[in-house]
Parts: sequence; C-alpha cells; structure tokens
Amino acid sequence: MASDLGITSRAENYSDWYNELVVKANLADHSSVRGCMVIKPHGYRVWELMQRGLDDMFKDTGHSNAYFPLLIPKSYLAKEAAHVDGFAKECAVVTHYRLKSDPVAGVVVDPEAKLEEEFIIRPTSETIIWNTYRNWIQSYRDLPLLINQWANVMRWEMRTRLFLRTSEFLWQEGHTAHATYDEAEAEALTILNIYRRFAEEWMAVPVLVGLKSEGEKFAGADHTYCIEALTQDLRAIQAGTSHHLGQNFAKAFDVQFQTPEGKRDYVYATSWGVSTRLIGALIMAHSDDKGFVPPPRLAPVQIVLIPMGRDAETRSKTVGAATRLKEELASKSAWGLPIRVTIDDREKESPGFKFNHWELHGATVRVEIGPRDLENGVVPVCRRDTGNKSSVQLDENLSGVLVDLLETIQQEMYQRALAFRTANTVRVDTWEDFRAAFEGEDAPGFVLAHWDGTQETEDLIAEETKATIRCLLSHPLEESDALPGKCVKTGKPSRQRVVFAKAY
Amino acid sequence: MASDLGITSRAENYSDWYNELVVKANLADHSSVRGCMVIKPHGYRVWELMQRGLDDMFKDTGHSNAYFPLLIPKSYLAKEAAHVDGFAKECAVVTHYRLKSDPVAGVVVDPEAKLEEEFIIRPTSETIIWNTYRNWIQSYRDLPLLINQWANVMRWEMRTRLFLRTSEFLWQEGHTAHATYDEAEAEALTILNIYRRFAEEWMAVPVLVGLKSEGEKFAGADHTYCIEALTQDLRAIQAGTSHHLGQNFAKAFDVQFQTPEGKRDYVYATSWGVSTRLIGALIMAHSDDKGFVPPPRLAPVQIVLIPMGRDAETRSKTVGAATRLKEELASKSAWGLPIRVTIDDREKESPGFKFNHWELHGATVRVEIGPRDLENGVVPVCRRDTGNKSSVQLDENLSGVLVDLLETIQQEMYQRALAFRTANTVRVDTWEDFRAAFEGEDAPGFVLAHWDGTQETEDLIAEETKATIRCLLSHPLEESDALPGKCVKTGKPSRQRVVFAKAY
Repeated sequence: MASDLGITSRAENYSDWYNELVVKANLADHSSVRGCMVIKPHGYRVWELMQRGLDDMFKDTGHSNAYFPLLIPKSYLAKEAAHVDGFAKECAVVTHYRLKSDPVAGVVVDPEAKLEEEFIIRPTSETIIWNTYRNWIQSYRDLPLLINQWANVMRWEMRTRLFLRTSEFLWQEGHTAHATYDEAEAEALTILNIYRRFAEEWMAVPVLVGLKSEGEKFAGADHTYCIEALTQDLRAIQAGTSHHLGQNFAKAFDVQFQTPEGKRDYVYATSWGVSTRLIGALIMAHSDDKGFVPPPRLAPVQIVLIPMGRDAETRSKTVGAATRLKEELASKSAWGLPIRVTIDDREKESPGFKFNHWELHGATVRVEIGPRDLENGVVPVCRRDTGNKSSVQLDENLSGVLVDLLETIQQEMYQRALAFRTANTVRVDTWEDFRAAFEGEDAPGFVLAHWDGTQETEDLIAEETKATIRCLLSHPLEESDALPGKCVKTGKPSRQRVVFAKAY
Repeated sequence: MASDLGITSRAENYSDWYNELVVKANLADHSSVRGCMVIKPHGYRVWELMQRGLDDMFKDTGHSNAYFPLLIPKSYLAKEAAHVDGFAKECAVVTHYRLKSDPVAGVVVDPEAKLEEEFIIRPTSETIIWNTYRNWIQSYRDLPLLINQWANVMRWEMRTRLFLRTSEFLWQEGHTAHATYDEAEAEALTILNIYRRFAEEWMAVPVLVGLKSEGEKFAGADHTYCIEALTQDLRAIQAGTSHHLGQNFAKAFDVQFQTPEGKRDYVYATSWGVSTRLIGALIMAHSDDKGFVPPPRLAPVQIVLIPMGRDAETRSKTVGAATRLKEELASKSAWGLPIRVTIDDREKESPGFKFNHWELHGATVRVEIGPRDLENGVVPVCRRDTGNKSSVQLDENLSGVLVDLLETIQQEMYQRALAFRTANTVRVDTWEDFRAAFEGEDAPGFVLAHWDGTQETEDLIAEETKATIRCLLSHPLEESDALPGKCVKTGKPSRQRVVFAKAY
C-alpha cells in the first residue's frame, strides 16, 4: 500500500505534483460534473478553520452575515454596464423549472415549464444584493450597512484545476454600503488589511498588497485592491480582492439615501472576497514532495501520536502513554482553539506506512511512542515542515513543549516563505532583461519594473511575455521602488515600479 | 415610528401575524426571485447559532463535513426509481452555459452554448453523493463513512412562505454508508436523537418522535423517522427527518464493498436533514403578538441594556453603569458561549420605542437603567417571554443573576410549550369525532387515533379531513397508545394509535 502514498516530485513535474497531492492527501476530488470539485472531509476541515478565522475578524470589525438568493434574474446583469461585460458571459443558465417522465428517455425537461425570464446561478452577488439594498436603505441612519455572505458561486470555466479554478467554488463575499466615498475607501482598506493579516498570521503566507491596474480591476469597480502570494514554481496567485465600487451599483439599482442635511445622494459601496482558492495557495506555498504541509494554525491534525510495539502487552503500554498524552493536550489550546490531536493505533498498518500517511496528510508534529522510548523516558518528536527529529522528555511538561513547538513552526514557516519571496523578487530596468526573465515556461517570481501607466502597454507586455501586472504596491518593498523612472517597454515616464509576474 | 413596530395579532389572523413578524423583526425578507428568500442578519444569526449547536453534536458523534457539487446530471435522477418519482419533477434546470450581448435585448442566452445533458440544481444530494461514494468505498475498512454537508438546495415550490417553504433554502444533509442494516439503523436513530435533543434543549420545543407511514416516507428510503413540533395554531410542523435508505442507493449507483469474509455486498445508507425551516418552527412555537420570542440559547440578543436620562450628565451616568454591566457580563458565559449583550444608547429614540423594538426583535431580558434606578441601587429587569418585571440589586452580583435568569427562561419556555402540547393532544375513537375534530379551517392539535395500516385508508382520511399521519410514535405518550384497537375509519384491526394532524 505504501506506493499509494507516493506523489510526483515538484522538480519532476510541478503541475502533476500539485494535482496528485490534492487528490492523494484527500483534500479534494474531481466530480462527475464538469469543472466542479468535491471537497473531501480533510480539505473541508481546512476551509472550516479558514472560515472560523476570517469570520471572527469580520465580526470584530462590525460585520454581520446574511444570505441572498442563488439565482439572479438575467435582466439584472445588464444594469451595470462594465459588470455585464466582465462577468455575465460564462455562467450556468436556468431556463426551465420542471422535469417530466418520458417512456423512452426516462426523464426529460418539460417544455411547458419554460421560464419567462431566465435565471443565472450567481457568479457573484452584487446585482441581487444591490437590488435588495434599495429597499433597506432610506436614510444616512441606515448606513453603514456591513454585510457578509458565505456561499457557493459558479462561473463556467473551461480549464479548471482543483481549488485554484473550478466552475463552482465556495467563498465569502462582503457587500457594504456607505454614506461617503471616504468611508467606503476606509472599509475597502480595513478588509484588505484583514486579508493580509489572515494570509500572514493564519496561512503563514507573505503577500504583496496593492492596487490592481485598470485592466485587472473588478468589472464594475472604481478600483480594486488585492493580495498576491507566490507559489513554489514562482508564479503569482491572487488570494483575495477588496473593491471600492464607487456609486456604480447604487446608480445601476437606484439606491439613494437622505443625507443628514436632507439632500439625496447615491450610496457608496464596497465588495470583497476570498474563496476556496486560498487552499490552493496554501498548498502551493508550503507543501513538499512528501505531501501536504499546512501551517499548524490551519492543520486538520496538529499532533499525531503513533504508539508502536508488536505484541499486545507492549501495545497496551504505548497506547496507554499516547492516551495519557492526548488527555493532557485536551486541556491545552493554541490560538484560542483546542489542540487537534489524533492517535493512530491502527494495528494492521506498519509504523512506516503511518509515517508516510501523516506526512502526506500534513500532521504538523508526529510523536512516536515505542517500547524503548517508554523505557528511556524520551520520545522522538518529528516536525512535518523540516523533517527534523528531536528527543523530548516524556513527562508532564511534554504537552506544553508540543504546544510551544506548534507556535514555533507557525513562525518559522512564515519566515521561510518570506525569505523565499525576497529571494525571488527582482528588479529589472531594460526590455531585454524583462523579456529574458519571462522567457520559456518557467516563471521568475515577482519582477518589479517601471510601466508608463497605460492599458496599451500593459496589453503589449502581456502579449509578448505572458506577464501581467499583479499590483501597484501600497507600500514599497524598498524605498526606491516608489521613485519615478522610465517604462521598461516604452521608455515613457513611470511614477513607480509595479509588480509583474506570470499568474495562476 | 412606533406604529412601524406593530404586527397583526395571532387571534386576528395567525397567518398575517407570522408573515409580518418575520419581516418586521428583520429575520427574513421576500426577494425578487420568485419563492426565494433573503435571510437578514438578525435571522441569519439564529441560523448560525443553530448550525453551531448541531455541528458540534454531529462532530461529537464522529461525523465530518464535506462539500459536493450544486449541480446534478439529469440522468442521475432516473437511477433510483422511487426517488425520481418523489423528487425530480419541480426543480431548476440548467440548460445553457453562456449568455451573450444582443444589441436589442441587452443580454440573451447563447443558443450555441446548449448543454448536451442538462443539470438540475440539487433538491437533495443522494444521487451525486452516492455516485461519488462508489469511488471511495472498496472495503469494509472504508466503513462507516459519516459525512455531513451544509448547503443550499432548491425545489421549485409553487406556494411559498418565508422559512417554512421556500424554493431555495439552507440545510444540512448527512449521508452515511455502513456495512450492515443494523449499523445503518443505529445511525438513523443516533441522528433522530440528536434532532430531538436539539429541538428540546436548544429550541425549547417539545417534539413527537417516530416513524413515517409508507405514504409520507422519503422517496427512496426503506423507512423514515421524523420529529414533529406543534404550532400555536395547532398544526404539526415536520422539523427534521432521518432516513434508513437500505441498499436502494447503493444498488442504483453500484456501490459494493468487500466484507471481512471476502464477499461482496451492497452498502447500507442513511440520510438526514434539518433546514432553515427550523426557524419557522421556532417562531411558531414561542412568539407572541409583540414579536419574536426566541429561547435564550438561540437569541441573537440575550440581554439588552437601556440606559435612560434626558440630559447629557444623567445619560453619561446611566451609560456608564450599562457599560460596566456589559463588561461584567463579558466574563460570563451561558451554554458554553459568551453572553450576547447589547447596549441601546440611541439618543434620538424614546425608551418606549426601544422597549417595543427589542420586544419585536426578541431580546430575552431587558434591563432598564434610569437615573432614579441608579440612586436606589435597583434596576427593573424585564423578561421577554412572560413580560414579568422584577427589581434587582445593581451590584456585583447582577451579572450572575442575569445569567441564571437566562437558564431559567430556557427551562420555563420548554415547560410551557410542553404543557401546551399536552393540552392539545387528544384521543379520538369514532369517525364522527375524528371528522368533527378536523372540521373547518382550525386545526385540533395532535389527534391520536387507530388506523388499519393501509395506504388506502390513509389517503381516504386525508381526502375527507386534510389530516395526515404525522408519525407512528417511537415511544407512546401514554401506555394505552401502544395497545391494539379498531381503525377509526374502517373498523379494521389497528396495532397502535398513530398521530394525525393538519400540517404545515
């Protein structure tokens, strides 16, 4: 069975490595519905922990959850011009509301149950929500309205990949309404900061934070902020976006309010979201050739205890020691949640099989408890992230040592990912060097270069190199990044370096 | 504004009372999508608390969450014969995957993007899940498989009502796989017991527990268990179901496993679910002419503090006292969760308006803090459920007193609902009395009567009286209920009394 646990190495084929890891580590699976995934219990647990972390941060900043309909009348899409161009096209269309039995075909669509107006399955909910907000908002006293929704959405993707791009995915979408432009701007930045903190503090993934170019912004937004992570194959991955929608949707759906001065004005809006794509970014940031390496804060299993011994008497001792340790861990917590600890006492599997199994599935720390360890009073403790093994006293302090180790691992995983990003961020000043950086299939990481600010140049660069502008940094990585220069493509004046990369 | 808070009384028009309460207490709203609701933040909070309680119980009994696709290929429905008859008909059908711009109509369905096989939006997920389980289950070692999903589902309902019957609703659906009939039976009963406990201990709603008749069981089940609650207008409301599916779905989707003896057999299955309908049942069980009365364990706001006083100096004192009390409550918990406490210090609203507002929205306990109360060192504490007001010392014990009061209210609400059910459960032995009980629009509560066990009689009774068999009780309410008798309609032998009612 051990061979079942093996996956292609990253060096061999990075893409196969990712695909095999996701399936073999039981995170997700392909479904029989084209482009849609099944999120398996092990992967869904990661999503639940992500939800928990994000939801607490949303609530701490005054947001409430609500739920809006899955279906959107087709006509709503046409109301916001930029939005329909960017979003409405590839989507699931509901045209009928009944099936009927057929003696030959079994079950067929009932032609008499054709809808007068078709619905689409939400690709995002701005239109249905702003159509609702029209009834909820009359006065400045109804503002701000700070609402989030956890939901499934659907975009009919042609080329899909588990977690990274699927036709259906799970996400949260925030939709807020404000009395002024500045309040909406503050909200967009509050959320951007939550996303950055979540990536860094929960996922142990450093992210670049900044503004999207006009060409990459959300369809219908005034401007879009994003967080961008780096994968081990040196591509950018957009991990979250926060949009200032201006008054665009309020005007499209006629949402006006009475100001304190008694005037009427259109409401300002934001929307923002992260999705199950975060799990893809997490895997790409930390995992290795043995399998999944989640940071402990998001690991479904933080500590696995493996009692050993061949005969029943020995096993009863090692299982007993494991059980006691698990009980001691039950009174501890990490990051405010109970420690997630499992005893693997399957009798029919070898220790070697179990080690491989838990490396594949990403248990943060493995404690082996063998008969000789019990005699010596020390047990081997193995870190998933580094593979380092150390011997630790098996006494009443062990549970505390393990909890401290989780915190250490979380920190060190972040620091390693940050060092990796720093090592793979380069500055380029000539078109020759720029082209060379992006030549071939391999990606160079983040390339900071000057750009003249025009859509034309952005398109030209993308066409020739497949590199896109990931963001205009909110905070320069180095002071000189914020200084003016000359566009790497056209030589025209540039206000600051921007971040280029090949992206997922 | 006070008039905005008024709703029709139950006596005046029970149906209007319910509809107005749901909307005015900001629990849910109608949407522009026919039959679909918007769950507003106040109502969604109730659902989040329900999810929390149920999810913990599912996890404590070994279940994990996962996620399966929203769309189901049309052909899957035809695979389980009974299932397709019961379920497949009224559902949303996806036939196309693209829209396109049209100079005249704006946006139209692209006729070239017609799907080869249509999809339906899941009305329930047995078919897609059992199609997946075929790949997950090979051996008895893969069993039991205990999975739950929190999801949205859709059934194209013609007559809808907020929470009680909507085209789209939120629910959890468990889908488990077992090696033997008996293990599946034990699972179905474990879940039935969780549903009963949740209704009683969280919702403070007593439920009848039992087996559905053949005519009322789930389409595709071997047998169906249910919990049935009683509304204030004396109708039954099915609040949860747990199905033993036998080998029906395993056979339909060819899910076989190797037994410990090396043979092959089809897997046994259960499925079970509760939905946002629970919120409807909750409202119908406890609320009154002033508005929403959730039990404290599910109340979005358990304690509201209302500081009073007309001038700034007085207000600063009462707001200060409220703030201190809120801080003291922050260190307390009820049922393992932090106390949900709010200070209503809106300056522009009168105390009377606030009292009405929080009665409508269902804050369990209201504490008024006025200048004279501060002087006297006692504050009025008002219970939402009974309206009783008492004076309580404003000292360091107050927060503890309030927490104890929440527990008392939870208990008393359950006891009152139980007494109400007992008072509205009758036994009837003649057809004349049975008919009389169900005459007119009003419902008589639960009617226990003998039935000959045939579908024909069940249908006849339903036709003449609109009464349906709610369940065959798992445990008789009185010993004599389990004794044989004669069918109230046909006079043929009956094994036990069964529960009849008019139902939502």
